[in-house]
Amino acid sequence: MSYFKIKGVIPPMVTPFNKDDEVDYDKHIFNVKKWGEYDIAGYLVLGSNSETVYLTEEEKLNLIKLTVDNKPEGKLVMVGTGMESTKETIYLTNKAAELGADCALIITPHYYGEKMNDEALINYFTEVADKCLIPILIYNVTKYTHVNISPKAVSVLSKHPNIIGMKDSSGSIPQLVSYKGVVDMNEFNLMVGTAGIWYPALTLGVEGSVQALVNCCPGECVEIQKLYDNGQDQESRELYERMFPVNAAVTGKYGIAGLKYACDKLGLQGGLVRKPLLQVTEKEKEELDNILKVAGLI
Amino acid sequence: MSYFKIKGVIPPMVTPFNKDDEVDYDKHIFNVKKWGEYDIAGYLVLGSNSETVYLTEEEKLNLIKLTVDNKPEGKLVMVGTGMESTKETIYLTNKAAELGADCALIITPHYYGEKMNDEALINYFTEVADKCLIPILIYNVTKYTHVNISPKAVSVLSKHPNIIGMKDSSGSIPQLVSYKGVVDMNEFNLMVGTAGIWYPALTLGVEGSVQALVNCCPGECVEIQKLYDNGQDQESRELYERMFPVNAAVTGKYGIAGLKYACDKLGLQGGLVRKPLLQVTEKEKEELDNILKVAGLI
Amino acid sequence: MSYFKIKGVIPPMVTPFNKDDEVDYDKHIFNVKKWGEYDIAGYLVLGSNSETVYLTEEEKLNLIKLTVDNKPEGKLVMVGTGMESTKETIYLTNKAAELGADCALIITPHYYGEKMNDEALINYFTEVADKCLIPILIYNVTKYTHVNISPKAVSVLSKHPNIIGMKDSSGSIPQLVSYKGVVDMNEFNLMVGTAGIWYPALTLGVEGSVQALVNCCPGECVEIQKLYDNGQDQESRELYERMFPVNAAVTGKYGIAGLKYACDKLGLQGGLVRKPLLQVTEKEKEELDNILKVAGLI
Amino acid sequence: MSYFKIKGVIPPMVTPFNKDDEVDYDKHIFNVKKWGEYDIAGYLVLGSNSETVYLTEEEKLNLIKLTVDNKPEGKLVMVGTGMESTKETIYLTNKAAELGADCALIITPHYYGEKMNDEALINYFTEVADKCLIPILIYNVTKYTHVNISPKAVSVLSKHPNIIGMKDSSGSIPQLVSYKGVVDMNEFNLMVGTAGIWYPALTLGVEGSVQALVNCCPGECVEIQKLYDNGQDQESRELYERMFPVNAAVTGKYGIAGLKYACDKLGLQGGLVRKPLLQVTEKEKEELDNILKVAGLI
Repeated sequence: MSYFKIKGVIPPMVTPFNKDDEVDYDKHIFNVKKWGEYDIAGYLVLGSNSETVYLTEEEKLNLIKLTVDNKPEGKLVMVGTGMESTKETIYLTNKAAELGADCALIITPHYYGEKMNDEALINYFTEVADKCLIPILIYNVTKYTHVNISPKAVSVLSKHPNIIGMKDSSGSIPQLVSYKGVVDMNEFNLMVGTAGIWYPALTLGVEGSVQALVNCCPGECVEIQKLYDNGQDQESRELYERMFPVNAAVTGKYGIAGLKYACDKLGLQGGLVRKPLLQVTEKEKEELDNILKVAGLI
Repeated sequence: MSYFKIKGVIPPMVTPFNKDDEVDYDKHIFNVKKWGEYDIAGYLVLGSNSETVYLTEEEKLNLIKLTVDNKPEGKLVMVGTGMESTKETIYLTNKAAELGADCALIITPHYYGEKMNDEALINYFTEVADKCLIPILIYNVTKYTHVNISPKAVSVLSKHPNIIGMKDSSGSIPQLVSYKGVVDMNEFNLMVGTAGIWYPALTLGVEGSVQALVNCCPGECVEIQKLYDNGQDQESRELYERMFPVNAAVTGKYGIAGLKYACDKLGLQGGLVRKPLLQVTEKEKEELDNILKVAGLI
Repeated sequence: MSYFKIKGVIPPMVTPFNKDDEVDYDKHIFNVKKWGEYDIAGYLVLGSNSETVYLTEEEKLNLIKLTVDNKPEGKLVMVGTGMESTKETIYLTNKAAELGADCALIITPHYYGEKMNDEALINYFTEVADKCLIPILIYNVTKYTHVNISPKAVSVLSKHPNIIGMKDSSGSIPQLVSYKGVVDMNEFNLMVGTAGIWYPALTLGVEGSVQALVNCCPGECVEIQKLYDNGQDQESRELYERMFPVNAAVTGKYGIAGLKYACDKLGLQGGLVRKPLLQVTEKEKEELDNILKVAGLI
Repeated sequence: MSYFKIKGVIPPMVTPFNKDDEVDYDKHIFNVKKWGEYDIAGYLVLGSNSETVYLTEEEKLNLIKLTVDNKPEGKLVMVGTGMESTKETIYLTNKAAELGADCALIITPHYYGEKMNDEALINYFTEVADKCLIPILIYNVTKYTHVNISPKAVSVLSKHPNIIGMKDSSGSIPQLVSYKGVVDMNEFNLMVGTAGIWYPALTLGVEGSVQALVNCCPGECVEIQKLYDNGQDQESRELYERMFPVNAAVTGKYGIAGLKYACDKLGLQGGLVRKPLLQVTEKEKEELDNILKVAGLI
């Protein structure tokens, strides 16, 4: 049995780029160390917020290695090594395993989304789990993939000894409860993938979360859970509600460029986005400043 | 000025895989030669029907080279070298150019689809066109990308000397007419990307088309246009309507696996699909046989 | 057998309202007479463009009666008497029949859209056709209903002796061809519901159409078909393409308020829209003026 | 100031029909009395689950009157009197007011959904609130209307003295939190419209809810809130999670016909649905029986 429990928040790390459109590894190292000062559960390298679809294999492996090498002991390194084909996913995940990754968050293949029915997804995740050297978690992120894995498929896959959880980024509480109803919460890490439902998810017994907001507000995301665990429901909820508009801004309207700008303002190193993504404009910076001010962050 | 006119149909070539999930290059060569016997305008390597998202860079370049080497003289080689990042698209397109590709069909980046607004897409295609050694065409395929480039952006991009056309696979005639209204049809190849609107598109003055159906029914797809050009509207339309259900089957319900099965039945070498796509079942084969029979193809 | 053939264009008549939000029947009568001067096939009272969902039963019946009373002989009166419930649809249709309506265009029920599957729609249209005193046509208008009747259901329903046709307003040519493939075109009026595909539909053998654009441009809509029937494909297509942006404006961006404004500018009596619809703004009027100018209409 | 607080659950009452497709008023009276035995906040007459779009004005008014006449004192009567046009909404709401309704739940107009922007909705609800004799609440039910009112519009409308709340049936917690962030919770009843998020909504401070499940499981829906208010979070959540699949069944897969069947099984009088809705099949009844059994309800 490879199951281990994941409790706490995890940043899906942004990848800082410089003006030449190259990865700025120094900024990445700075961020890894900075986040390490907070009581986070670990790191996600190569999540959607890392612009992983813009990275070469070499860049991906560099980022994983630098995370493993610069993190405090005891923190988890999760890697987003899901590719479109079964074989490439297995290849890249095992490369990451060799570099010291602890587990992999595998996105649902999605280019041929209409064909990714229960049977295709069950086959896919089963073969990947069978052949990967580290445990895997299912990554469901409808916003980007336009694929939504069914509770039925999750139920089947949750029984695989090398599939230890899933991250649902749909933001849907009814869907979360549907998943919860078909898995064994003692042997499966049902994680939410957005700060937009962090407090409600806690009240439903979810204990782990990968959320973009941890990039720029690690302390607040950790605190929401600590307060809740400590029985301070009211304080936890108030902090969640205060952070809510910030999360909506950096994951929705302003996207990754906005998230990186917030990182820059709040003590992390966001850097630039890679093309074809557009940088934040001056006007957007002002709007973001205002949102951060209202939330009491600056 | 790099513009040249593209008239006729082009197969977005399937990539045959064998039982070991590897590319079967011999079958690919067979297909290139077989299609070369028909009066097609050229070949599309690495289109959506090639399962290009499942191919490694090495496999992609091999397929391009083998197409260039085995095609009859005078036929165009178009390559689907669009990647998510601007720099990888330029890199791969120029690799293809070195191998002898004539032009590149560049898909709209789409993972961060909500951010691919007019400005982002205009920037992207402009930079790609500026830096690529061969002319490019815009590839709009909403079904897979969930991005739909606006007539406004197409209008701007159509004026770039190295952007010589676009393939719209939306299947929407109103959208096609909208694009037509904003480009100069004498200097821009407005192509349709599905046999589902081939005859209506011809009546609107479209002269080029990349369509999945050419893979298995090259003769019929060529003939529809010849009949139309020859003033035999009625015969052209009847052939189009007879092929319509076959096209719906191999691009919709049964997907690439169905398209490959139809290729196998009709004298081409479809081969298997790569995982995680599912192969056609025996039941689906029967249904497809029936559709091919009704259309008078077997 | 109640089948009769419908050839030509039909305006889905706008309902002019005055400043007190009341129906302006004088303007309606003016319009009926004005349209009667053109070679249209007939009239549609209570279509989507009539704001029928805002009309009381009394207003609906008045509009039908005034149309019957003021139209030239030989022109068809079609009525949009579909309601959500089976019994109300039958009731209202038979009221209209008593007033002299020739046939009814019955919209797919849609509030409980997810439940309107093939079985429900087949049951519905069958019972309505059985119990109505005049022939009916199916009205498929996805844009408003978010329901899309399947070719399979249309195939079944097309065999009912009292169902003499359908109007598809989806604007999708592939869908139109799918319907065409399953009905007997000699005994079923397959009509298109938008000027956006009028010319392509003609090339596919469609001969009847209800289109918003007929409201403000009856002459042009009639002429496109006459030119086509006369073998002047090129002229027909050019006129269609010239009208295309006008149609896009008055059915899409500017809606019914824009359509009514265009009517006012082009010799008909559009009048105001009923609340909660918003009137066109001065800025929108300028934009519309420009579109009408570019199309050579003013 | 007309504001009053609504705390507790409310059944959006089903309308029982008999085999002749007529309203069975006796069953309605039975239900009103039966629900009155539970600690519900009140009744919603003419909500989406009442098949209100299938009812005549006379039937609607009868149902309102019979509810007012047969309910226990102190329970609220809310009426779903929103129509498509501004004037009909005002007319019907004031008719209901005369019959003793306490407040009205006004659905967003939706047939011309694309035109129902912030300005149109703000104008609409403002005029309706101005002219209605009883307080109104906004009803947002995207599933049926395909319209989604923005937090910005809700913020503006929440300040109107005669708009005392809203029911959001989207089922989206992030959206609920967005609304909460822009209204004054002390003067605005932010209610959720589905049992699918009842417990999470309670943890966020929501205190009122109209939910289909109250029709068949009034005791359980009341109990979830009582347990929560009593500090028994764990018990409340467990009951919510146990009811969750029942709610999913009677609001999703099996629809109103399924909801009515569940009512019949659980001591209420569901009756039949009106055409064109389909009755539950024998197979569906078995599936529903099983769902009710698993939930411990039978």
